[in-house]
Amino acid sequence: MGSFSRLVRFVAKGGQTYYGDAILPRGTTDVSKARQARIIDGDIFGTHTVTDQVADIHLLLPPLSPSHTGTLRCLGLNYALHAKETGMPEPRFPILFYKPATAAAAHGDPIPVPPVAQQHGASLDYECELVIVIGRRCRDVSEDEALDHVLGYAVGNDVSHRDWQIKQGGGQWSLGKGFDGWAPYGPGIVSPRIVGDPQALRIWTKLNGETVQDGSTSDMIFNVAKTIAFLSQGVTLMPGDLIFTGTPSGVGMGRKPQLWLKHGDVVEVGLENVGTW
Amino acid sequence: MGSFSRLVRFVAKGGQTYYGDAILPRGTTDVSKARQARIIDGDIFGTHTVTDQVADIHLLLPPLSPSHTGTLRCLGLNYALHAKETGMPEPRFPILFYKPATAAAAHGDPIPVPPVAQQHGASLDYECELVIVIGRRCRDVSEDEALDHVLGYAVGNDVSHRDWQIKQGGGQWSLGKGFDGWAPYGPGIVSPRIVGDPQALRIWTKLNGETVQDGSTSDMIFNVAKTIAFLSQGVTLMPGDLIFTGTPSGVGMGRKPQLWLKHGDVVEVGLENVGTW
Repeated sequence: MGSFSRLVRFVAKGGQTYYGDAILPRGTTDVSKARQARIIDGDIFGTHTVTDQVADIHLLLPPLSPSHTGTLRCLGLNYALHAKETGMPEPRFPILFYKPATAAAAHGDPIPVPPVAQQHGASLDYECELVIVIGRRCRDVSEDEALDHVLGYAVGNDVSHRDWQIKQGGGQWSLGKGFDGWAPYGPGIVSPRIVGDPQALRIWTKLNGETVQDGSTSDMIFNVAKTIAFLSQGVTLMPGDLIFTGTPSGVGMGRKPQLWLKHGDVVEVGLENVGTW
Repeated sequence: MGSFSRLVRFVAKGGQTYYGDAILPRGTTDVSKARQARIIDGDIFGTHTVTDQVADIHLLLPPLSPSHTGTLRCLGLNYALHAKETGMPEPRFPILFYKPATAAAAHGDPIPVPPVAQQHGASLDYECELVIVIGRRCRDVSEDEALDHVLGYAVGNDVSHRDWQIKQGGGQWSLGKGFDGWAPYGPGIVSPRIVGDPQALRIWTKLNGETVQDGSTSDMIFNVAKTIAFLSQGVTLMPGDLIFTGTPSGVGMGRKPQLWLKHGDVVEVGLENVGTW
């Protein structure tokens, strides 16, 4: 599925927006380092062509256009060490919550903290996550066939306001995680054939240049195939649906003392073979 | 906003799908009783015309097409008596969760109960709810201006599998509420000028013809205006977003003995001035 290697959506120097296949400089696998891309014609979920037309990338956008962006599903506590740092037991089944599509954000965009998230304690946290992008409609898919429905992978930040997430939301996490711009993901959608084994990737967060999360997707409790199979039970997954697969240990909430994001901080998430965002 | 009175989407006798303005038989305000509609041309969220062309309604569909359906937000415990029957305290802030758009269902559709929801206890429940349909993009809207952004109202059933919702989902309600077809809503989107005061409407559920929920939207803890204002804080609400506003008392979980939906049951939700679904 998908003839591209690294699907990006970008504003070109002339101001037009395109889908393209990123051209990487030598010596890097980080899609955010691409300065040019081959323009893609056609339906990114269906028949399309990577053309010979090369455009300069002025600004990377979230990899899917708003009309192509489906439902954003997220897993909680899906890395064993992270479950431990939160003091929660390892889940028996995937823990599911959602974000609205309006939470997607472009590369380098500030994370806006609305007044409502400034009123209830400074508890803004980062969570680097492998993001699965569904490419093909499926339902009741088996673990064996689950990966056939993946368009590619990105890295995302499940930005979380812990006070709204845990204390003020009646136990439901949604309020503290769904603000505009709180689901940055990118830098592109990297084809499974480029990414390789999705359970053997380093994943990290840097805060002001310092590594604060440094894990491996091998530590996932429910791996990519199991996650897709589980979530598709009785539920139709659609092209353009995203699944944020949970974060490794090292979040600000789990540290002693706790470490909260503050105005002016620079937070960057990264995934091996995919890049940084 | 919206020149229609009662927006319906339907399959006409010839097999084509249309948006239309329902024509009600005399003596009813229930949109599901409409057998004909005037076809609507144009953008239902923008410039459109209710034409003079009348079509026969063969089948009512969920009022918004899949491409027009945005994010489905739902509130928990938003009626005081319902909060009491669940044994939970009245919430201080609205309790938010989501359903995927694939949960929408047509009039008379069976509610499919996938194997995963048959494995963990028979705990299938109904929840009649007033559904707000957002018609105009907004963010940080005040309570005073919130209702200006409503395209209309529908009635929905927040179908819930209590075991997956409460016990197996790690505390997050999503797993037990998001299966395909578990957010039926309709029968149309009734204009605010037809509905009148959204906080003075009878709302009910009938199970096999017997009334099992019978409440009033006057009992909402967070009314429609407060709900929109609250949810829009730092969050862009989009045309086509739906908000299920919580259910009154009488759900199966709160009864003694508990009352669970079983195969072959007929469940119908209703809202005054809107209709049944």
